[in-house]
Amino acid sequence: SEPARDDLIQEDSWSFEPRGRLMFDAGFTDVPDAAGASEGFGNELRRARLGASGNIPGGFGYKFEFDFAGDEVQATDAYLTYSDGPLEIIVGQHNNFQSLEELTSSLDTTFIERAAFTDAFGFERRLGASASYSKGNFLLQAGIFTDDLEDMSSKNRSADARVVFMPKSGPAQLHFGASFHYTHLDDPASSLRYRQRPLVHFTAERFVDTGDLGADSESGFGLEAAAIAGRFHVAAEGFWQSVDIASSSSDPAFFGGYLEAGLFLTDDTRGYGGGKFERTKPSRPVGDGGPGSLQFNIRYDHLDLNDSGILGGVQAGYLASLIWKPTGHTALIVNYGRLQYTDAVIATATGDTFYGVDALGLRAQIDF
Amino acid sequence: SEPARDDLIQEDSWSFEPRGRLMFDAGFTDVPDAAGASEGFGNELRRARLGASGNIPGGFGYKFEFDFAGDEVQATDAYLTYSDGPLEIIVGQHNNFQSLEELTSSLDTTFIERAAFTDAFGFERRLGASASYSKGNFLLQAGIFTDDLEDMSSKNRSADARVVFMPKSGPAQLHFGASFHYTHLDDPASSLRYRQRPLVHFTAERFVDTGDLGADSESGFGLEAAAIAGRFHVAAEGFWQSVDIASSSSDPAFFGGYLEAGLFLTDDTRGYGGGKFERTKPSRPVGDGGPGSLQFNIRYDHLDLNDSGILGGVQAGYLASLIWKPTGHTALIVNYGRLQYTDAVIATATGDTFYGVDALGLRAQIDF
Amino acid sequence: SEPARDDLIQEDSWSFEPRGRLMFDAGFTDVPDAAGASEGFGNELRRARLGASGNIPGGFGYKFEFDFAGDEVQATDAYLTYSDGPLEIIVGQHNNFQSLEELTSSLDTTFIERAAFTDAFGFERRLGASASYSKGNFLLQAGIFTDDLEDMSSKNRSADARVVFMPKSGPAQLHFGASFHYTHLDDPASSLRYRQRPLVHFTAERFVDTGDLGADSESGFGLEAAAIAGRFHVAAEGFWQSVDIASSSSDPAFFGGYLEAGLFLTDDTRGYGGGKFERTKPSRPVGDGGPGSLQFNIRYDHLDLNDSGILGGVQAGYLASLIWKPTGHTALIVNYGRLQYTDAVIATATGDTFYGVDALGLRAQIDF
Repeated sequence: SEPARDDLIQEDSWSFEPRGRLMFDAGFTDVPDAAGASEGFGNELRRARLGASGNIPGGFGYKFEFDFAGDEVQATDAYLTYSDGPLEIIVGQHNNFQSLEELTSSLDTTFIERAAFTDAFGFERRLGASASYSKGNFLLQAGIFTDDLEDMSSKNRSADARVVFMPKSGPAQLHFGASFHYTHLDDPASSLRYRQRPLVHFTAERFVDTGDLGADSESGFGLEAAAIAGRFHVAAEGFWQSVDIASSSSDPAFFGGYLEAGLFLTDDTRGYGGGKFERTKPSRPVGDGGPGSLQFNIRYDHLDLNDSGILGGVQAGYLASLIWKPTGHTALIVNYGRLQYTDAVIATATGDTFYGVDALGLRAQIDF
Repeated sequence: SEPARDDLIQEDSWSFEPRGRLMFDAGFTDVPDAAGASEGFGNELRRARLGASGNIPGGFGYKFEFDFAGDEVQATDAYLTYSDGPLEIIVGQHNNFQSLEELTSSLDTTFIERAAFTDAFGFERRLGASASYSKGNFLLQAGIFTDDLEDMSSKNRSADARVVFMPKSGPAQLHFGASFHYTHLDDPASSLRYRQRPLVHFTAERFVDTGDLGADSESGFGLEAAAIAGRFHVAAEGFWQSVDIASSSSDPAFFGGYLEAGLFLTDDTRGYGGGKFERTKPSRPVGDGGPGSLQFNIRYDHLDLNDSGILGGVQAGYLASLIWKPTGHTALIVNYGRLQYTDAVIATATGDTFYGVDALGLRAQIDF
Repeated sequence: SEPARDDLIQEDSWSFEPRGRLMFDAGFTDVPDAAGASEGFGNELRRARLGASGNIPGGFGYKFEFDFAGDEVQATDAYLTYSDGPLEIIVGQHNNFQSLEELTSSLDTTFIERAAFTDAFGFERRLGASASYSKGNFLLQAGIFTDDLEDMSSKNRSADARVVFMPKSGPAQLHFGASFHYTHLDDPASSLRYRQRPLVHFTAERFVDTGDLGADSESGFGLEAAAIAGRFHVAAEGFWQSVDIASSSSDPAFFGGYLEAGLFLTDDTRGYGGGKFERTKPSRPVGDGGPGSLQFNIRYDHLDLNDSGILGGVQAGYLASLIWKPTGHTALIVNYGRLQYTDAVIATATGDTFYGVDALGLRAQIDF
């Protein structure tokens, strides 16, 4: 099997680990001709991250990573930690505790983009402080947050919490989770907007979009379930996001969720740990003369942005992916998605807002 | 005691040391209601630096570090060095030789922001070449500079020099220094502006501000004194900055300075070396079951931007800080400041420019 | 001799090597008084690169490097590789296969800026996929590319190929190469522009410039020859770039090339490998009490942007450089160039477009 990777440098209780990932995407989208939306070939450097994590004596640690893809450099994780047994305190910009899919590293998801609701509902890393308590099969996470580092002048204030139960059932790993999210938008000028692309990130078109909602607050509630048994896994999530509209008494509640199943064609299994999916490590990587791992996945991905007079549209995605991991730190991924729209916000010339879009995405990725 | 940190990688005369620091600030400011200035809660990622320093064979070395906090990435130190015994040559962007407070790392200052005059008078790293000569208790530094890397099109040309005498008196470390600064602004369109925030950086308000001064040149002169004796330290500086106004025969001279004293409540002492304060290393860090170090500091911080018809205002700061360092590379800091203004540039509704502002700042920091 | 540098960290088939370079430039340009162009002293941080390269098990590797000089951070190399014996596959942003001079690292060129045609004709790294096959004295490289990471919305599509024959003739290293380049600009709004500075980068003036050309495509063809024999080397290249003008039947073909010779005054030789020049490693570096290496080079550098009714001007450069490398990873470089213009695009007050410009450039550089 592939050699394990120790911390690259370790002295006494010091450790320093450089981190990085590169993801290149290319593919096609095909939209109805009369809709006037751009389509065809697209490509991009999806992520180019470089950073470091490590420990320093006394139970302290840090992680920071920057993404150089896109027009400007952005901090992703930028935090310091203090650990004492089952307790971990984090201060800085880090993931709020929303959704199994969101918390799983982009290196380890089964599709090149996460479930539609995670972007649509604005899940992102934010600056704040949190505590995690992990004991046996239970994990409890809670934190308070301001906004992301690009929006430090906003007056948004959030609270998030998540609880996970992750028992073993014979050889099978089970996962059950629930999360709660609340953001108070303490600024009359602030608004929320929920929208999403058709599976691939290299297109700029979004066929579902609530437009700006003058909001006082948003509240979210999510449920998670997953199981891994040998070569097979299933996962499902649902997330309900409701918005307190400033000028209206009827507050819309939107929904997103997915159901997926995957199967390794090689003798491999999906990684899991700490309440999220982790790296797949091929049992017979190509460096040892093996084929690496090959995994086939299907997903139904639903996003409903229609409620209480808001007509943001409904996106129903029928997705399939094939992931070849020559080694644990490399992957070639093919994704196909058929996105079926109801009340799409981009109408065709004849006024049709009920149609489908095809998306094909390829990714080459490496990380260290 | 805490384990010393060797260069992480060292072969022959090669060394490579990754460097980084993270500082998160949060706090409050309270200004007179009628002044119309923003106040209340604020927070930010104050510094997120990542870089590297090292040596290569032949006496050469390098350091570069970038700050990812703020809207765009900025180079801080970016230089190469050549050392031969007591002599060190530096080429690149580096600190000019102004002020003990400015030259002390932001990791090792006693307040979360440096003395008001250091920002007000525009101390910053600039691109240039310098030589330092160190022998026994004497240090001599001198360099010539253009401008900082963000302003390469300016025609500013500077010369800076500093001399330090740092004898031991029994167990006490003494420090005496003087520095000289001169900038020629070889551009009719160029101007200078001196201003400062009330102690904390996360507010954008500045109550002292000279406005733009059409200047031909600026000249600065500084004096430094400090002493460290066991748990106790004192430090004081004064800096006189005069501006050659293009259109006027009476050239204003502004003044800034501070006087501070600090006491460790634990059995620790403030670090010192190379003509500046250095890292405090707790004698009993938390990783070894100790309490870390706890230091209490008070400072009077003065900045006078009134002279020769320029009415930039006077800021008198009464400051206190409590610094808990669990280990040498972590700190939690609480700062309080009462800033008393005379001729503040922001008047209240009744025209009052003599009032006080309160500022409270907390910082969590880690570095490696 | 100078100690060799192993991969800094290597375990099993993992390696991780931090990379960086710093180059500081300063100097002067002198242009005819009546031309109205800016001249005089200039300086800049020319390159400040930080990144990493490494291998991971299975034959995979990666390299990414970012340049922090200039107004914004830009990715230079950002790619992943797969190697199997003589074959190497690269996916990501990397150098297209144009010109010996362009492919030689900026650390190892004989002048502080590359031959005029390499910038003028828009050679740059682009996002794409390529294959290289190397066996004995032969090297074959070919790839397809979209655009650089800053221009992902363009519809440019390129194909590039290069073949190199690099035999030894007794103690001499010979080099013969040819390259082909084609870009299709699939956008009616797209245009090309060829222009170049007078040797040094810190000036913004360009005296040769085709202006925007409404183009459908460009095609380039290059020839390379070089020889290294002990302290002596010669190199020559020619590159023909023709543009398919959308609105015209007569398509211009532009030409650039150079001829250079260099001689070490110390007992050193220029590095060569993999179809390009490589690092000069002084046989007696200063760290070992030696003088380092000292190399004197002269070059005639030609760029002709006049053809088929396009009057972009002709630049003939007479260049000399002196390179002192105290060690393999440091250099101090002095460059002088006399650039003689015909049909310069900046005319003097009397309408003269036939004149000369002097450029003097100094560089201090370090890398790791």
